[in-house]
This record gives sequence, structure tokens and C-alpha cells, in this order.
Amino acid sequence: MWISRAVSPISRLLQERRTMAFWTEEQMRSIDKMLNPRSIAVVGASPKGGYGGRLFDALLKSKDRVRLYPVNPNYPEIKGIKCYPSIGELPEGPDLVSVVVPYGKVLEVLEESHRKGAGSALVISAGFAERGVESRLELQQKIGAFARESGLRMAGPNCLGLANVKKDIWPTASSRTLGGLTGPIGLICQSGATAFGPFLLRAVDSGIGLSYIISTGNETDLDFSDFARYLLDDPDTRVIAGFVEGFKDVRKFLAVAEMAAERGKPIVLIKIGRSESGARAARSHTAALTGADALYDAVFKQYGIVRVQDYDDLLETSQMLAHLRKPVQPGISVVSHSGGISSLTADMCGLAGLDLPVLSDKARDGINAVVKEFGWAANPADVTGFSRSEQFPDIMRHMIDEPGVGTLVIASAGAGNQVEQVIDLRDSSEKNVAYFWTASRADKGPLAKLKAANIPIFYTPAKLAGGLRSLLDYHARRDQRIAAGITKVAPPNAEQQQMIERVQALGRATLSESESKQVLGAWGVPGTREIVAQSAQAAVDAAQRLGYPVALKIDSPDILHKSEAGVVRLGLKSAEDVQRAYDEVMANASLHAPNAAISGVLVQEMITGGVEMIVGVSYDAQLGPMLLFGAGGVMVEVFNDVTHRHCPINRAEALEMVAEVKGSKLLRGFRGKPAADIDALVETLVRVSHLAVHLEGKLAELDVNPLMVLPAGRGVKAADALMVLKT
Amino acid sequence: MWISRAVSPISRLLQERRTMAFWTEEQMRSIDKMLNPRSIAVVGASPKGGYGGRLFDALLKSKDRVRLYPVNPNYPEIKGIKCYPSIGELPEGPDLVSVVVPYGKVLEVLEESHRKGAGSALVISAGFAERGVESRLELQQKIGAFARESGLRMAGPNCLGLANVKKDIWPTASSRTLGGLTGPIGLICQSGATAFGPFLLRAVDSGIGLSYIISTGNETDLDFSDFARYLLDDPDTRVIAGFVEGFKDVRKFLAVAEMAAERGKPIVLIKIGRSESGARAARSHTAALTGADALYDAVFKQYGIVRVQDYDDLLETSQMLAHLRKPVQPGISVVSHSGGISSLTADMCGLAGLDLPVLSDKARDGINAVVKEFGWAANPADVTGFSRSEQFPDIMRHMIDEPGVGTLVIASAGAGNQVEQVIDLRDSSEKNVAYFWTASRADKGPLAKLKAANIPIFYTPAKLAGGLRSLLDYHARRDQRIAAGITKVAPPNAEQQQMIERVQALGRATLSESESKQVLGAWGVPGTREIVAQSAQAAVDAAQRLGYPVALKIDSPDILHKSEAGVVRLGLKSAEDVQRAYDEVMANASLHAPNAAISGVLVQEMITGGVEMIVGVSYDAQLGPMLLFGAGGVMVEVFNDVTHRHCPINRAEALEMVAEVKGSKLLRGFRGKPAADIDALVETLVRVSHLAVHLEGKLAELDVNPLMVLPAGRGVKAADALMVLKT
Repeated sequence: MWISRAVSPISRLLQERRTMAFWTEEQMRSIDKMLNPRSIAVVGASPKGGYGGRLFDALLKSKDRVRLYPVNPNYPEIKGIKCYPSIGELPEGPDLVSVVVPYGKVLEVLEESHRKGAGSALVISAGFAERGVESRLELQQKIGAFARESGLRMAGPNCLGLANVKKDIWPTASSRTLGGLTGPIGLICQSGATAFGPFLLRAVDSGIGLSYIISTGNETDLDFSDFARYLLDDPDTRVIAGFVEGFKDVRKFLAVAEMAAERGKPIVLIKIGRSESGARAARSHTAALTGADALYDAVFKQYGIVRVQDYDDLLETSQMLAHLRKPVQPGISVVSHSGGISSLTADMCGLAGLDLPVLSDKARDGINAVVKEFGWAANPADVTGFSRSEQFPDIMRHMIDEPGVGTLVIASAGAGNQVEQVIDLRDSSEKNVAYFWTASRADKGPLAKLKAANIPIFYTPAKLAGGLRSLLDYHARRDQRIAAGITKVAPPNAEQQQMIERVQALGRATLSESESKQVLGAWGVPGTREIVAQSAQAAVDAAQRLGYPVALKIDSPDILHKSEAGVVRLGLKSAEDVQRAYDEVMANASLHAPNAAISGVLVQEMITGGVEMIVGVSYDAQLGPMLLFGAGGVMVEVFNDVTHRHCPINRAEALEMVAEVKGSKLLRGFRGKPAADIDALVETLVRVSHLAVHLEGKLAELDVNPLMVLPAGRGVKAADALMVLKT
Repeated sequence: MWISRAVSPISRLLQERRTMAFWTEEQMRSIDKMLNPRSIAVVGASPKGGYGGRLFDALLKSKDRVRLYPVNPNYPEIKGIKCYPSIGELPEGPDLVSVVVPYGKVLEVLEESHRKGAGSALVISAGFAERGVESRLELQQKIGAFARESGLRMAGPNCLGLANVKKDIWPTASSRTLGGLTGPIGLICQSGATAFGPFLLRAVDSGIGLSYIISTGNETDLDFSDFARYLLDDPDTRVIAGFVEGFKDVRKFLAVAEMAAERGKPIVLIKIGRSESGARAARSHTAALTGADALYDAVFKQYGIVRVQDYDDLLETSQMLAHLRKPVQPGISVVSHSGGISSLTADMCGLAGLDLPVLSDKARDGINAVVKEFGWAANPADVTGFSRSEQFPDIMRHMIDEPGVGTLVIASAGAGNQVEQVIDLRDSSEKNVAYFWTASRADKGPLAKLKAANIPIFYTPAKLAGGLRSLLDYHARRDQRIAAGITKVAPPNAEQQQMIERVQALGRATLSESESKQVLGAWGVPGTREIVAQSAQAAVDAAQRLGYPVALKIDSPDILHKSEAGVVRLGLKSAEDVQRAYDEVMANASLHAPNAAISGVLVQEMITGGVEMIVGVSYDAQLGPMLLFGAGGVMVEVFNDVTHRHCPINRAEALEMVAEVKGSKLLRGFRGKPAADIDALVETLVRVSHLAVHLEGKLAELDVNPLMVLPAGRGVKAADALMVLKT
């Protein structure tokens, strides 16, 4: 079941290669038993309520389909079901052992379950890492290690359990076990109270069907990505929706994300960490780090993950992605019974960057033939009472048949036969139909019909616009991801390998400017022409060779902020200038940092006619190598006009980075200046991203600021560079 | 009733002076009769449904409280009520005449009503300006003129009517006339289908009570601002909520906004025009222009108008503003039964810029004494099952008593007695209590109790955070507005008056750089030292007087883009430089614009050590004089880092403008440079705002770019300036 379907042999091969790094068939089989159990033991079952009692009660309703074994030495039977004193005495090794015992006894139960041949475990018990005590963290790690080593894979601890909604099996300690919700959305939440609270209840409110609900708790063994990997193979799950405070292993998550893009199964996420308050809150009650949010945003975009803000968004966007196709055109058309409603809808769509193509003459005339003067035939259309007439299907046909339109939105309240007409249109059209419901959320008539028909419904114009934006973005990013293929980096060539060894041999934390530029050079990133001089005379000679004007800078791995230290002189036009500057720079250097190792003074060509940009590399503790690009020089600090990507990147991604930075306007022939060499810039971004991959584990940080982008055909030059190594 | 209460004599005086400009007592009396009628005629009443039938049906339920007169020559009685052939034959002049007749008959009905002594009119009839036909617009204007001249003030045409929710009187042609919603929110909508559709239905869903529902339609006579002005005096209305596509008269709206700030009655608005799609849609079906959105945002902020995005926002934010006090502290504390819910809440609060103060030791210890190890005592707090315990009031007390906290948020699902505990706390605390409801929206138990108690409720963490942000912003802006008082501008002094006359006498559309600077000078804005030279020799002499280096620029009202025309030379260091530059500049000028009027070449001091900013004035067709401030030079076009205000401004507003611009970082001693003269900059912004007021009707546009802001104590200098006059 977890063997991939409907993918090309090559991509399957690639997947399997990557899959093997993170997942085993045995592990997937264990998850399968956990989520589709035919037999379940409840260790800590009780007739008296509490977590064990609630979990057992929740399972009672599936007793005809699942062999149910309460385990508790204090009772011969619970609610008519024979109770066992211990796991060892069960008649079989159950597919799933659910564990609701004090934290100190969990390991023992798991060991016994393993001996009995159980298939998987679900540890509800709390009292582990979330207590913030070292000994409990250790105990949790021990349990996780046992699960991995024994092969008895487990969810939890400190989770609320799970639900196979399809089969109506609810091994959960939540008091909420509503049924009748079957649908294509698989829900995975680190927070159990969120999964079985707002998500489940709002899904019921909105008539949105789920396949599984999985609460992963502290994730000492199986984590979000493992369950997502399983759901990728589940034919009944079309969208994976998640609530994540932090990832235990981001690389594993990225591997899942890449496979999800290939399979066309969207992953929709709420990820905590938008703000310091949230990150702090998440840190305080889980072991997970949230990480730098802007970097996550960049990575999610790159991997086609749909990020949303709240419960309604997660559910409504997931439902829409499960039930709408890839739009054949990006355009949206909107039809409403009200001018005010249609203009607000158009306003929010426009704000989200959606296109409402102007109506063709044909459609306008066709709609006018129906509404006469009682309405406004446009996009958005205000068709007044004709929204509840027999002619409404004609109107909708005109709107949806427009050549630039891929999605029709009905913004209305479902009067008359409208809902049936909308469902008929959806069933007969190749294009998408969505509904913006303007009446009461509690409506039991037409709204209920729309829900039952799985028409994607939104309840406010802003949510509608956000949802449709996500639909377009998801498909655009997925297409790009697939077209780009797996971004590969060749291993370092001989020159690069040599450079890596030289850098490692230095035994220093920082490189001087000239050293940093030499490293960049090995990856094909050119620097300014420059010569290191150890005397004033050598500096003058160097300047003559380079040609005036020149710049002078101290070259030292120990003086990183050169402007502040007064060891930079620009625009020197003569031998005298250079001589004087040399003396000043050396004097300031020994004043500023008397013990600095100084390799000399860098005599450098002055670059004119270039645009200053910045390129940087950093390594996020969770995400690994990240590339930064932005408007350079002083503008970085003032405007923070930068964008990020996970390394490596390809040329398409590099172009996208350039497009995202406002300062890139300066590259496009601003105010009569010649257009800059964007081609060389793109190549440079790709090369620096390879450098970042090759130097992972050795490099801590790289800053090229400014990178001068010269006029088209003349390339780029690193005018300053700073490398900090890991020590 | 419309006489202002609870305001100081001075502000009442000011109000009355301003009020008189826009409103009369007679007009307010007419609106009062419309909204609180004791007798209502329905012209076009019918037993057969349609608009006239629905309106009459809606009024039937108030027949015991209101004298109801159906008017229709075809029926002797309708549904048991005596029917009259015409208005003229009614036994009295009714307080309100509601009109549902074909558009061609409306004026006639109004004339007859006026003769009969009716108090007000409500024109439901459509077929006017919204048809987009000139003759219908003219007819509408005629009706409006009649209403104003006769004193029979009217709402509509093309509206859906209104509702006095307090008294349960519903003169509306909408089929929705739900009762039992009484509350302090007065709703005014240009779109009737929005007022009696999503707003009314969602208000019922959310248990949010309204005082009036007013749909204003095409606003040929009474408009949004007139009804808002009335509601300012209504003791039962504490918040005015509106849906506006465009304002008929923005000045009138600003006068209402200013009075609302004084009275402390928040105005909460959805205003169309966020995007071009929305603006186009609104234009297409109403006569209203939406205007430039960034300018509206600036004005709303300045006048303390709370702008929201959608239906839920409008209702939830209005309800919160009606039922929460001004927070005694800006801090928020959050308590939940779930770690996942509390961390998402904290995350969204942080994203909205709200502060969740770290818990004091006292509160932490107090909460830990309750929850022991089953929970996390922090802000946000995760108190697990203690959220439904007898100790929950103690926990809430600890959270709300924190010194930095003004508002406590309970993020939960109302289990046990929690809701009663929350209501008790609200009733006994000086601080604010809000609820983030995490369970089903359809809950009929605890949620209904919260609604009945008017605890402000939000249903997603993002909406909660947005709401609380609005609460803080509203009070901060209101306080600022009140502290600043009415921003007054003295009339132009003699020098300024002379300058205004000189400018008018020019008879040209544009001024040259030196002319523009002279005008600025009359308002106290200094320019660079400069001399106009008519020969190369004169230029050299001028340069010597000014001191090298200098800049040379053509001085002509006909060459506005000087850089592009090649008529600027910078950094000239010698007489030879100046001579050569003079010749080049003159040659390029005659090449570029052979017919340009040229007053000479401007020889100008070069300014060093200043920060380049931009100050500008424009006149919005709806809003009037607007001031722009931002990062200057090239950065304007690249980063569009600018902010706007309605003129005139005071020093506090000028300081706020400076704070809002990212590029202002450069003013604060960036990278070791001296701090710039922000004081002089603020003074300059105020002065330019006065210039904008004085020159209204004469000036079209002013651009000072760059305005050089020199180091502290050295002031500012306009380095370039361009004025375009109205012609």
C-alpha cells in the first residue's frame, strides 16, 4: 500500500533512493497497523473515566469490527468486554497497543508488547519531555530508541491518539469522536487538543470530510513526516493537512514535501513561529525548535507547501485543494445577486493578486439578454434576482466559458434552485466552481446541500481570495518543482576540493577579504582585480598595474568591520594618494586591532557602473544551507529587501529570487542606465548555492556585499567578501 | 436628541461651528422621524409580494406601535389594513413615506408627500444612476435637489430600506426581518443586500446586537455621513459600523470622524478600493468613486477610523469596541486548556505586534500551585484540565492581575463552569476580558451564554489578534487626535499672500526650480544657496561667491526632468569646470527643448553630509490636500518607501510620518554618521502641509526631492523642487 503508484519509473527510482534514507518498509507496515488495526489493546483501560476510560469508550463503538482487549489487572471485564491482567496474557499480539499508564511504566509495557508480537503502539501517557526536566527527556529518548530498535513503532508520548475516520475506528483519549465525516483530508497535528478540538469540530461545522486524524504528541519515535509519508501512499487521502510547532528533522520533511509535489498531493500547514511570542510559547511546552520564520516561508514556497494561518484556513483550503482541479486558466469570474457583495469580492480578489478578466462582448450581451436592465453584466457580475431564476445557469455558463477564466465563484445565499444549478454546472464543467456563501453559517438548507456535494465553500471574501490564491500558487510551484527536477549538485571538482582542504587547514574562524574571494573564485564567482601589497611602494606599483583610481583596504582575517575601523580608502587617483592612504590604513589597523594578523593592504580596482547587490550563505540549525539575495550596500540594513532559498537552487529559482527583490529594479536599466548582467547574476546565485552545499559543516557564514552587477555582457564582481568558518 | 452631550463647551462650540457647515437641526429632525417613525405610509403596497408587498409585510408586525398606511389605488384594504388611493388622502402627514413605485413616479410621490406634511422619505425604487444612463442620473439629481429644498429628506433611491432594531420597526423590502438583536452597534451600508444579507445574518449567528440597520443606496440626498452624524447623538448606539464603496463628500465624512473621535464612538468600516478590481466593480454599479486607497488608509489612521476587511471582522470588531474599555495596559495575557492552541494564539498576537508580557514570579508560582506539573505556567498559559476546574478563577486572576496586562484572553471551549467563571471575572474586573472560542460555532451551550453576556468572542486566533490590535490602535489614535486638538492653520501672512498672488499672475502650469524654491521659502522651507546666471562668466562669478564645489542646472519651467535632459552637472571644482559645464548644459537644453523658456543656469552649492528625503503635496479629487514623505532620491522609485497624511498636520503627526518610513533609519545616526536634524524636518513637514492648505485650488502638485536633512542643528535644505499649478 505504501508502494508508490502512478509515478514515472525514474521518479519512483529517485523516490525510493531517497525514501530508503528516511523510511523502511517495516516502519510503514507498523504505521499501517496503527492506522488500520484489526485488534487493539488498551493498557490502562478503566470503567471509571479518565484518559484510559475515555479511550476505551471511544473504541467500544468499533468492537464489532476490531478485536478489543482492555488490559488492567483490577478488572475481570470492562463494559462487557473481557479484561486481561497484562499484555502477555492476550490471545494474540494486537495490531495496536494503546498505552495509558503512568509515565514510569510505559517502557515496561512497550517491552512486553514487543515480546508479545504487537504491531504498533500509541502512547497517550504524559510526563515526558514536555515537563522540561532532564530525567523525563532521557526517559522519553529511551522509549523512542526502544521503538526504533525493536521495530514496535510508536506515536506519542503525550498525544491524544488518532482516528481512522474512514473505518470509524477512534483510538483516542479525546471525548470527541464524531463520525460520518469521511473525506480525502488526512490531518496530522502535534497538538492533540487542536486535532480533536477546533479541527474536528470546525470540520463537522463545515461538512469537510477527513480520512485520518493523527495526533503525534512529543514525537519521540514517529513524527509528522513519517505519518505524512504514509498518507502519500494512502489512496483515500488526497490532501495532507497539518499543525506543526517545529520539525524534528527538517530534511525528512523536505523529502516528504518533494515526493508530495511529484504525486500531486498538496501539504497544507499551520506552522508556529510567525512571531517571537509564538516561538517562545511553542518552545516552552514542546521540545521542538521553531526556527527562523522567513527561512521557513522561503522553503515552503520552494517545495510547494501551502502555508495558512488558522483553523478555518487549513480546513477550507484543504477542502478546496482536494476538490478543485488545477485551473485551466488563472482568471476568476464572480457572479452575485448583489453589487455590494460582488464589489467586495472583487476587491479582496484583487488584493490577493487574482485576475478578474474583463467580460467579453459575447458574455456581456448574453447576460444582458437575460437581466435586461436589472443588473450589471461585468466581472464581477451583479445579476440581482436572476440569481434565483431559471436563467441563472445561462448566466453562469457565460461567466465560466470566458476564455481567460479557470474558476467561477458564486457569491450568494443559495435562494431558489440556485444550489442545484451550481452543482449541475460543477458536474458538467471542466472548469472549477467555488462558492462564497453570504448567508448564515448555520443554514440547514442550501448550505447543507453545497457541503454534501463537496463544492468548496468560503464564508468571507478575504478567505475566498486567500484560498484561490493558494490554489494557483500551489499548482504554479508544483509545476516549477517538477519541471526543475531534483536539483542536483555535482561533487566538488579538483580545484574546489583543493580549496576545501586549504580552508580547513587554516585553522581559523575567519578568512580575510582576499582569501574569501579566492574561495569564491574556485566556484566560478569572479572578484575585483586586486593585489595584496606589503609596502607603500608595492601598493603604488600595484595601483599602476591595476590602473587608477583604486581602493585600499586592510587585508586581515581579524578586522571584519573595515569601514568602522577606518581601514578603507576609496577613489585614490595618484601615487601620492596611494602612499598616504597606505600609511593611514596601516596606522589605523594597528590602533584598532594591535594584535591582528595582517597579510597586507589590498589594492583594488574601483568598479563604476555596477549595481550593488548582496549574496549570502548561512546554515540554519534545522534547515541547513540557506542562500540570501537582496539589494546591497547600505540598503540591506535600511530596507531589509532580501529573499531566501534552501540550497542548492537552479536557474529558475535564482531568477525568481531576483524577481522578488525590489532593488532589482536597478538591474533593469533604471533611469536610462544600461541593463545589468542578470544572466551572470543568476549563474552566480546558482554557483554560490553549490558552494553552500559543498562547504556544509565547514562554513558558518558567507557575505558578498556588495556583489557588483555590471552592464549586460560584462558579468559580476565580488567587491567585498567575508567568510566565517565553523570552529 | 441630536444636541451633543457630555462634551466640553469648547469642543461643543467647535463641533457646532463645523456641524452647521454640513448639517442642520431640521435635517436631523427629518432623519429622526425616518428612524423612529410613529406613522408610516407605504406607497406601492401590495398584497401580491414584490418589493412593495415585502415592505408592507415587514411593517405589519409593528402595526400595534406604528400607524400604518398602505397607499395603492387598486385596493380598498391590504391584509386587514385600510388602503388609501393616494398620499393626499391620508388622515395625517406620516413621519415616513416609503416609496416603491416605478422610477418615473418617484418625484411626484415626493412632491405630494411634502404637500401633505410628511416628515421623511425612503425611496426603495431603483432605475436611477445605477443604470449608467445620463437621463436617469439627472432624474436622480432632481429628486435629491427636491429633498434638500423641500426639507423632506430622503434615503435612497435604490436602497433596501432600514430597521429600527431597538423598537422592532422594519421598513425594509428585504425578506429578512429577524428580531431580538438589540444592541449598541449602528449599521450603515450603501449596499442593501449586504446590510440585510451577510451583516444581519452573521450578526444573528454571532449574537451581536444592533441598534439600527440603514441602507443608503444611491445617496442622492442623505448619505453615509448624515446617518453617522445622527447616530453620534443616539444614546443607544456606541459603535458605528459601515460598508462604504465611496464617499459622496469626504470632507463631510471627515467632520463626522472628528466628532466621533471626540465623543469616543468608534467608526468601523469596510471601504471598497483595496484593489483596482474592487474599485472598478464599485464604479460600475454606483456613481461613487473609490479614490486612491493608500490615501484613504492614511486618512482613516489620522482620524481614528477602524478599517476592517470582511463581514466577520466588522461585526466582531464592532462588538469588541462596544463592550471593552480602553485597556489600562497594552499587554495581553492568554490562558488555554491546550499548548497547541495557546502557542498559535501567541503566534498570531505576536504577528499583530501585540505584547504578551512574560509572567511575573508571583503569577507563575500562584498558577503552579494549582496546576502542579500538569500544565505550563507562562504567558500564554497551558493549564490543561484546570481550565474546567473550580480553581480556574484563581488562574485567571493571576493572569489578569499582571501589572503589564490590560486584556485577558481565554482560548478555550467552555467546558464545565468555565463560562460562568469568565463572566464573573469580567463583571468584577477593571480590565478587559475577551474569549477566543475554539470549539464549534454551532454550540448552543456555553457559547450561547458567552454571546448573551456580550463577552467579545473571536473564532480564530488571527481574528482575535486583529481585533485586539484594532482596540489598541483605536484608543491610541483617538488619544492622539484629541491631544492634538483641531489642527489649525493661520491664514497666509503678508509675504505668503504676496507669493500666492505672484504665482497666480505667472499664468503658467509649471514653475522653474528657483521659482519653486522661492515659494517654499515664503513658507519657511530653506533651499540650497544658489544664484541664477545668464552667462558662463556670471556662472563662474556665482560659483566663486558660493564656494566650490558647485552644481549647475538649467533653470526653466519647461524642462522638468533635468537629469534625463542632460542639463545637470554636479561636483564642479574649478572655474574651468563651471565654464565647460555652462556651455554643455545650455547646448543640451536647446537640443532637448528648443522652445523652452530659460531663465538661466542655476549655480548651486553642493550639499554633503545630508540625508536625501522626499516631501510632496498632491490634491486628491475626493480627499483634498495630501502630504507625502519618504526616502528620497532614487529610493522613491525603487522602494516606494513613503507615507501620507491629510493636510494640515501637526508636529505629532509629522513625527509619526518620520517613524513610519524605513529610510528614516538613515536620519538616526546610521553607521557612525551624525544624527540628522529631525526637529527641522518635522517643522518642514508641518510648514509644507500649511502651504498645501493655503495653495488649495491653485497648486496641483509639489515635489521636493531631495530634501537634504543636515546633521542636527543645521536644518534642512530643498536641493531640488518642482511645482505644478492648476490650469
